[in-house]
Amino acid sequence: MAVAFKAPVKDIVFGYEVVETYDVISKIPAFSDFNEDIVIPTMEECAKFAEEVLAPINAIGDQQGATIKDGKVTMPKEFIDAYKSFSEAGWASISLPSEIGGGGMPIALSGGTLEILSTANLAFGLAPGLAAGAISAINFHGSEDQKAKFLPKLVSGEWTGTMNLSEPQSGSDLGTITTKAEPLEDGSYKITGTKVWITFGEHDLTDNIIHLVLAKIPGSPEGTKGISMFIVPKVMVNDDGSLGDDNNVSCISIEEKLGIHASPTCVMEYDGSIGYLVGDENRGLNYMFTMMNEARVWVGGQGLASASGALQGAAQYARDRVQGRPVGMSKEDAKESTIIDHADVRRMLMTIKSYVDAMRYMMYDNQLMLDVEYFGEGELKEFGEERCGILTPITKAWISDLGVELSSMAIQIYGGMGYVEETGVAQYLRDSRIAPIYEGTNGIQALDLMFRKLPLDNGQAMQRLLGDVQKVIDDMKNDDEIISSMAEKLQKEVDTLSEVTLWLGGRMLEGELVDASAAATPYLKMFGQVLGGYYMGKAAILANKKYKETNDEFYSDKLTLSKFYIEQLLPLSSGYASAVTAGKEDLYAMKAENF
Amino acid sequence: MAVAFKAPVKDIVFGYEVVETYDVISKIPAFSDFNEDIVIPTMEECAKFAEEVLAPINAIGDQQGATIKDGKVTMPKEFIDAYKSFSEAGWASISLPSEIGGGGMPIALSGGTLEILSTANLAFGLAPGLAAGAISAINFHGSEDQKAKFLPKLVSGEWTGTMNLSEPQSGSDLGTITTKAEPLEDGSYKITGTKVWITFGEHDLTDNIIHLVLAKIPGSPEGTKGISMFIVPKVMVNDDGSLGDDNNVSCISIEEKLGIHASPTCVMEYDGSIGYLVGDENRGLNYMFTMMNEARVWVGGQGLASASGALQGAAQYARDRVQGRPVGMSKEDAKESTIIDHADVRRMLMTIKSYVDAMRYMMYDNQLMLDVEYFGEGELKEFGEERCGILTPITKAWISDLGVELSSMAIQIYGGMGYVEETGVAQYLRDSRIAPIYEGTNGIQALDLMFRKLPLDNGQAMQRLLGDVQKVIDDMKNDDEIISSMAEKLQKEVDTLSEVTLWLGGRMLEGELVDASAAATPYLKMFGQVLGGYYMGKAAILANKKYKETNDEFYSDKLTLSKFYIEQLLPLSSGYASAVTAGKEDLYAMKAENF
Repeated sequence: MAVAFKAPVKDIVFGYEVVETYDVISKIPAFSDFNEDIVIPTMEECAKFAEEVLAPINAIGDQQGATIKDGKVTMPKEFIDAYKSFSEAGWASISLPSEIGGGGMPIALSGGTLEILSTANLAFGLAPGLAAGAISAINFHGSEDQKAKFLPKLVSGEWTGTMNLSEPQSGSDLGTITTKAEPLEDGSYKITGTKVWITFGEHDLTDNIIHLVLAKIPGSPEGTKGISMFIVPKVMVNDDGSLGDDNNVSCISIEEKLGIHASPTCVMEYDGSIGYLVGDENRGLNYMFTMMNEARVWVGGQGLASASGALQGAAQYARDRVQGRPVGMSKEDAKESTIIDHADVRRMLMTIKSYVDAMRYMMYDNQLMLDVEYFGEGELKEFGEERCGILTPITKAWISDLGVELSSMAIQIYGGMGYVEETGVAQYLRDSRIAPIYEGTNGIQALDLMFRKLPLDNGQAMQRLLGDVQKVIDDMKNDDEIISSMAEKLQKEVDTLSEVTLWLGGRMLEGELVDASAAATPYLKMFGQVLGGYYMGKAAILANKKYKETNDEFYSDKLTLSKFYIEQLLPLSSGYASAVTAGKEDLYAMKAENF
Repeated sequence: MAVAFKAPVKDIVFGYEVVETYDVISKIPAFSDFNEDIVIPTMEECAKFAEEVLAPINAIGDQQGATIKDGKVTMPKEFIDAYKSFSEAGWASISLPSEIGGGGMPIALSGGTLEILSTANLAFGLAPGLAAGAISAINFHGSEDQKAKFLPKLVSGEWTGTMNLSEPQSGSDLGTITTKAEPLEDGSYKITGTKVWITFGEHDLTDNIIHLVLAKIPGSPEGTKGISMFIVPKVMVNDDGSLGDDNNVSCISIEEKLGIHASPTCVMEYDGSIGYLVGDENRGLNYMFTMMNEARVWVGGQGLASASGALQGAAQYARDRVQGRPVGMSKEDAKESTIIDHADVRRMLMTIKSYVDAMRYMMYDNQLMLDVEYFGEGELKEFGEERCGILTPITKAWISDLGVELSSMAIQIYGGMGYVEETGVAQYLRDSRIAPIYEGTNGIQALDLMFRKLPLDNGQAMQRLLGDVQKVIDDMKNDDEIISSMAEKLQKEVDTLSEVTLWLGGRMLEGELVDASAAATPYLKMFGQVLGGYYMGKAAILANKKYKETNDEFYSDKLTLSKFYIEQLLPLSSGYASAVTAGKEDLYAMKAENF
């Protein structure tokens, strides 16, 4: 019943242009020949795979889900086949270094592929997504032996990998983990403890799973400074690469969740399992954090994917469903009319589609900045680090919140049919609801923005970003009237954002940190909304230029979407200003027991 | 795992005072002695019933749901027992006239009981809720014979009732229904057709179900003017009240829905079933509309209930869960701290609780206005009609949208545990998601506000409401400083609302109806947010007075919640202004196929 998924390749290709991907990436020697001739066919091929293989099994994954019996987790058989094709096609490793068997492409390229794959099947993508994190960790921080032993089969997809951070008492705060790593004589460790929220911790897609586990070596410092990272294979790997004994790693249970049913969320027990220390002792959390940005941008991408996927079905339904007479339409015309002619349905479609564009640009820019941070040099690298630092919490939180809101809006377009699982749109809402929670809750993202990113380089990093926004506004002001009128509206919201940013900076300098923490979430929402306007402004300039060149209505549509965003959605931004500057007082006025 | 439900009786009792229930209702002779001595014990008793009987089976209803086999719908057995106790206790009929066996209480009293019962178990309440609609329809419009035959057992709960409006091709637009009603010689009709979205259309709670069915008599006018209403019992009722033959009414299927699993949503087939005309021919839709206001206010109440229920669990979780060190807290203090000490968690709790208060006042005022409309006389009745007319679409849409948003926010407070079904909070999100859809989608509510309510009495009705808001602001300005400072903020938002209201009035006078329809949804959102501020202002004045009298922190908390709403949530209102005044152009700029 769900509408057949069609990847928005043209929109994606345009997204790469809006954020000036090719200009920026040409500054990185390794990727100097990265261009549209790579992006377009890659996206087309990825679209084909997603449309033909992943999208058709999305509902199956939701309905059957992963199941557990006697510690064995079973995936729907369609997922096993799809995973095999996925690995063979190399989609998981496209942006991994070629030295380890990856595609050697920039991370930027996986902005589009992640969007496409996640839109087609969010739960599916979590297996290779988490594996990619494990691969990066081993590649960046592991020994040559470890790389040789584990990377080839992880990269090829023959094995998957997981990240084991949380424990029942340690969710957001990893300082309190208790999983123990006792040194053995051969240099390996005996790992004992329980880990929770382990995505694809156990499954039958592959015959081995490589777990990366945070644990404490006895005698290590307290808190986050005493955490080390270990490679713990599900099945031991012999020196010749063949599989050996079972490693006492077991899945105790899987969670029954609101969504992403085909992604088993496992409680894992390590019972004296053999583990190999990655890098140095007590540096585990630092190693984990180096991968965190990537993971967080990806979660933002999931919000984009949910909204984009939900939009497709809703738009099709709105074009098909005959119902009612739109205001102002004659009875005769109404006979040919469907609900897409109702202003309110139009408003919902325009809202979702505009936001999807803004979210896409933001996420792609953030992916691009990962390349600049990882592969740039000197000032360029510093710039990438700084910009990535600011963008990442916004991409993660603003987009993942919108993913939920807009998936819910898509349900509304279907009316009663949206509430029926058969149409498939409800799955987007259920699946998307995890994104604001995992990889650091959105509240934590807001604190990260406030306390780590706002003060970067004494606030100059933020000023540089706002300066870039101002440059776009100035360009808009000098452009055609349709764009210069948008510039004024964007200017107004940017000014409000700048004011509250200064106010916040002041509070923090005065040591009023609790006021700043109270402001964190509305500040992030405000910032996201304004940054969305910045990207939509850039898109407007480009779309207008291209429309004049090509007369292709795709570009005039992009201009319309930018105008709609800046006039009708962006103004919600200043609505948050008074919450930002309200201070902590009212938040703490009530006793905890009175809620 | 879900937290044991505790009805917020004190908040509810305060709500009755905020909207001046006793003053207003004393103007209606039949209810002149209605006062707190009735409200308080009623709410306490209702709370006891909801806490002990309904809340404990809420998760059971969600997990087992209603099931269908061979046309027979089976409810979880706990629901059958609960329904029996519910009927015996008379909760369904408390506000029905005593002449027909009801409790003879004002509708206002069921504001609180509906809130309590819906919070405890939303799906359960739909059976008696729909029956109440059928009872009202028969009572208002049926013949004496029909009343004698059907009402006693409907009122006692021995039978339930349903409302059959939609058909596959007729959802929001009932003008296109095709169900046929052919006259028989004995004055009854043969009803043939398929109806969809029939809540509790079939179940095993009772041994008969009285369906109210909209159908067309051959030769009747086209469209909505040719629709008649029929009583169609599932099982024929003999003159002595005993049950007779089966009436060829069958349930073909039930929908598999996102939520309210214990409320079977049925596709019903009437295959030459015997039906009895209610009232006059071709007046069916008018009769239906007389009950629509009540139903819509109730749906608003469901949004309130979802948010309120979700809040309880989230607040308890936030008080219990130890995690992380709040900004500004010493390590030592943090050892005793739970996540409720984090500013962001506080913000979410304050947001939900403030909105819950605002939604409660709005819904209770709307219920009260139903009494004034139905039972008032002369000018009082006219006032009730007018005020009810304006409030109802806002209560329905603004509150039901918030129900979804705030249930989702409650999930966020739980972090990962919120995404696990076991904690129960996800059920609130899933259950609440229907409320913006049924009883007229929220888009239709917005059109109702714009095209039927805004022009009432040439706009004077709206001006009178805004005048009442202004009176409260003036009172606030003359109150203590804490309240007068809120008044300024409320004034600012009311002024913006008044401006756009005038602008809209102007557009409509100029015949620019499509611009108005384009503005409908953001206008309703804006209006809801401002009205919420009006009620919170009233609450602040009352709470401040009572706090001075009693020194009870319950009242200083209410003052805090009002202040938080007016300072931090209300300002979102003006964020919608530019969407209201943007006109239709951008909504229709893109071709339908380009979405």
